[in-house]
Amino acid sequence: MGRETGTSSTPRSRTERQRARNRGKLVSAAAELLATAGPEGLTVTAVTERADLGTGTFYNYFQTREEITAAVVHDALESLGARLDLLTEPMTDPAEINSCAMRHMVTSAVGDPLWGWLLVRLGIGQQELRNTIGPLHRRDVRKGVEAGRFSIPDATVATAIYFGGLLATIQAQLSGDGSDNPDSVFAEYMLRAFGLSDEEAHEIAFRPLPPLPELPD
Amino acid sequence: MGRETGTSSTPRSRTERQRARNRGKLVSAAAELLATAGPEGLTVTAVTERADLGTGTFYNYFQTREEITAAVVHDALESLGARLDLLTEPMTDPAEINSCAMRHMVTSAVGDPLWGWLLVRLGIGQQELRNTIGPLHRRDVRKGVEAGRFSIPDATVATAIYFGGLLATIQAQLSGDGSDNPDSVFAEYMLRAFGLSDEEAHEIAFRPLPPLPELPD
Repeated sequence: MGRETGTSSTPRSRTERQRARNRGKLVSAAAELLATAGPEGLTVTAVTERADLGTGTFYNYFQTREEITAAVVHDALESLGARLDLLTEPMTDPAEINSCAMRHMVTSAVGDPLWGWLLVRLGIGQQELRNTIGPLHRRDVRKGVEAGRFSIPDATVATAIYFGGLLATIQAQLSGDGSDNPDSVFAEYMLRAFGLSDEEAHEIAFRPLPPLPELPD
Repeated sequence: MGRETGTSSTPRSRTERQRARNRGKLVSAAAELLATAGPEGLTVTAVTERADLGTGTFYNYFQTREEITAAVVHDALESLGARLDLLTEPMTDPAEINSCAMRHMVTSAVGDPLWGWLLVRLGIGQQELRNTIGPLHRRDVRKGVEAGRFSIPDATVATAIYFGGLLATIQAQLSGDGSDNPDSVFAEYMLRAFGLSDEEAHEIAFRPLPPLPELPD
């Protein structure tokens, strides 16, 4: 969030650098508008004004408001997902992997309210958000089932509870209805829901949380 | 949903009946617009056109779009809440009370897609929705804690997981990403999260669900 993310490969020519810069400005501006005013505040004029670019520039990069919204979600989650993978890669217990991933989702949103409000204002109906967070979660949960750590009666509802519960927990926290250690408590409930005993869920969810590593250049 | 709800007391004079009828038409029209087009589709013109009333009529009853949205949520949940109370009043086990309430929230939304989409499109950020469903849930959960049936590390996060998870489960179901018995599976996960064993959570959540009683006139 706030970073002017461009394309993932390094642009070579001056024109390509310029394009990546403009796209980054538009995506950053859209992210700020979505976080502060919600989807209703996202107009092409508002985006280009905030990005200090001409209105027509928008259409060199995106065709619709939905398209730039998807780009905002994609850019933000791509980096977060990669950092989470890097963090949990050496871990062997799927319960700990899930706990760390869930806790960092909560702490990143609570620690960066612009990112948190963006998630909340996009909401459970936003397709790109659901289609990015959902499969990541299912993959981690599947590991837990295969390792015999989790008992999951239904994967769709498990993901829905995680996804909706995550956004609502962030919403409560950002609205001042705060909890101590919301990340740990959230993970504790979810690990219970996945079939761990109360004691083990608590112990795993309240371990010291290793910080997210930076991505290598 | 769809009923032309008026005020709770019986209006006496012809003018009062007319007022209740108009208000009911406006609230029904707003509910349909919210369910089909979401908050962005709710304009004063769209509401009055759908209700077949003059634009000015709107302002005899509501000052803002937020006010009529709150009325939609209030009217719909007031009746559902009262019917749930009537159903669960004779029950003694808070786990069963919670299970029935959670399951009827899911089945009512899945069985009446207009009501379901309304809940989903209003979303976790809608204050009236949160302020109505949240306290009802907390009250039921508190009974479970007092009876020693539930172990709740944090009431705010428990409610957030229930509220957000409920809306996301309804969203998944209405979008065709359906589960068998989504109501039972949802209740099963939540009862586990509240500290019940996997076996007991399953047994309670898969009992036959008694139908919602009609309210006495």
